[in-house]
Amino acid sequence: MLSSIYPPRSIWARPDGEIEYMDQRWLPHEERTAHLDSLATAVRAIREMEVRGAPLIGVTVAYGLWLALREAPAGSNLLQHLVSAASLLRQTRPTAVNLMWALDGMVNRLNQQPPDVLGEATAFVAKARELADELAEADVATCRAIGEHGYKLLEELHTRQPDRPLQLLTHCNAGGLGCVAYGTATAPLYLVAERGLPVHVWVDETRPRNQGALTAYELKRIGIPHTYIVDNAGGLLMLKGKVDAVIVGADRVALNGDTANKIGTYLKALAAKDAGIPFYVALPSSTFDPKLENALDQIPIEERAAEEVHSVWGHTPAGMQQVRVTPPDTQVSNPGFDITPGRLITGLLTERGLLAPNREAVLAAFPELKG
Amino acid sequence: MLSSIYPPRSIWARPDGEIEYMDQRWLPHEERTAHLDSLATAVRAIREMEVRGAPLIGVTVAYGLWLALREAPAGSNLLQHLVSAASLLRQTRPTAVNLMWALDGMVNRLNQQPPDVLGEATAFVAKARELADELAEADVATCRAIGEHGYKLLEELHTRQPDRPLQLLTHCNAGGLGCVAYGTATAPLYLVAERGLPVHVWVDETRPRNQGALTAYELKRIGIPHTYIVDNAGGLLMLKGKVDAVIVGADRVALNGDTANKIGTYLKALAAKDAGIPFYVALPSSTFDPKLENALDQIPIEERAAEEVHSVWGHTPAGMQQVRVTPPDTQVSNPGFDITPGRLITGLLTERGLLAPNREAVLAAFPELKG
Repeated sequence: MLSSIYPPRSIWARPDGEIEYMDQRWLPHEERTAHLDSLATAVRAIREMEVRGAPLIGVTVAYGLWLALREAPAGSNLLQHLVSAASLLRQTRPTAVNLMWALDGMVNRLNQQPPDVLGEATAFVAKARELADELAEADVATCRAIGEHGYKLLEELHTRQPDRPLQLLTHCNAGGLGCVAYGTATAPLYLVAERGLPVHVWVDETRPRNQGALTAYELKRIGIPHTYIVDNAGGLLMLKGKVDAVIVGADRVALNGDTANKIGTYLKALAAKDAGIPFYVALPSSTFDPKLENALDQIPIEERAAEEVHSVWGHTPAGMQQVRVTPPDTQVSNPGFDITPGRLITGLLTERGLLAPNREAVLAAFPELKG
Repeated sequence: MLSSIYPPRSIWARPDGEIEYMDQRWLPHEERTAHLDSLATAVRAIREMEVRGAPLIGVTVAYGLWLALREAPAGSNLLQHLVSAASLLRQTRPTAVNLMWALDGMVNRLNQQPPDVLGEATAFVAKARELADELAEADVATCRAIGEHGYKLLEELHTRQPDRPLQLLTHCNAGGLGCVAYGTATAPLYLVAERGLPVHVWVDETRPRNQGALTAYELKRIGIPHTYIVDNAGGLLMLKGKVDAVIVGADRVALNGDTANKIGTYLKALAAKDAGIPFYVALPSSTFDPKLENALDQIPIEERAAEEVHSVWGHTPAGMQQVRVTPPDTQVSNPGFDITPGRLITGLLTERGLLAPNREAVLAAFPELKG
């Protein structure tokens, strides 16, 4: 059953304290949930992409560590169980930075517990659960803060043409489904849903994996009017004055604003620039990479599976099915993300406010990022 | 059976004089051909999109008129048959300018025949066939001329980096499949195939109808190395220096170069500009619309069927199938083409050479377009 908590969560505690999550493989066509009942379930959920999105994966591994400790046989060495569970979870998605960060944080903090916690199994397991809950709540709070700052921005944008709904365009799903709740680029829209600003969202399909369908699902769930379009359409809409601002998420952002995000983001930034409309990147500060000097040269572009391009998954009366769209033996290339140069970005929407896309502004807001 | 004529034709005369065409609904997954044996077949072929592309539709209706006359009962009024066949064909695709132009041209020229042709059924039917053949050959000659000028251009571009294959990017299928042969944007590539310049083509998928699969099919057939990519990928490739030039076709072009073409063309033109690489539009002069002053405001953008966005057709082991990619009840928008402003276009590749995208240059090459 779906959680009745508002805003909708991707992972949540049931009234009996057990953890439940949305099995996202069936979205947007079916809402299925599953019980996160063991370390093995956590491993499977991440590996099979039942959960997706860096923050959500981080929280899932934290609960996975808690479950590993809970299911350890009485009298066993819990610190040893912790380390071997962490090692197992680490292998589920070896390139996921957020997963590593969540695992390291959990293991370090559990190792640093005072002797009365370390030495008592019930207290130790309870502490693991507490830390996982904290991680989940911290993600919610960060996304909510991005939402608050974003809401102010949308309110301001709306005053420029108060006679009609504010027209936004987004790419991919930087939504609550990839986080615990709210998401990043979508966070302001949850506050719009609560407070009632007239907003309409153009949702990019986002080939090859069509995450636009997830965004459409998410916006429908909270009642934000939206229209789904193919990735090719956004340029025309901007040129025709049908978009007031673009807002997207980010995978990795340099302090000068250079942004790695889902493939196709850069094309929308170019169109926004050409049409003279603002282009915003929403991100939690954990997405900044202070070591990056030149994102275009320094970030290797992940070449993803050719199968994602060759075939499209979708719903049929007989269930989910895959159809092949390319001719036999066609060579494909499938870069997973692109780089949007900071020069095309109007502002970085973070949990501490809207920042100009330059080193000085980012470090002034987040001095802890200084090297 | 496929024609063995080189270059491959979309419609051709068999050795016995009968007309055969490719039934393109099964491409790129199956090569099926059909016999254009009657007016009814011509109507069906256009209506069911067995043939597609403005020039090919024009030639198909011309042969359709010939067939209508051929099948008229002995002693009937052929001019009356001609008019009623034209009226039937006109309704197959009411917005296709080229179809109207081909019909009007055929009807007018047949009406103007001398009495010995008009009065003699066999001669009149033969004249209709002759005019249809002429129309087909004129299309081939125009596309071949575009190809010759384009080949020179590609040769010149290749000298800039002679140590590696020239990297082109194209959008949609402005190919021989939409014409009798050669196509427009693809025409230079047929000459590349004949003469052996090292060229590699990035082929945009072109959602929602995935005409990139047709381009990939066509390039494979003539042996041009190519890589199929989602529409989102081209920006990154250009930013990374992996594209030397973009070449696309056109639906309708103003004398200042403003170009209506398949949705998504504009985004690629923006990326080419940002990366400092040339962007070419290939077109026969019949695509110029001398009456257009401002394409962005004057050309109404056709909103196509929502179904094209909701669902994707593709091949499965059990045959062709459609899968739904959007959530239930999702609103979609499906603009069929966009406008690329002339300011983003490097040159217009026509049957009389490469022209600067401005009124003076176009009228100097095509004085007959003067109003």
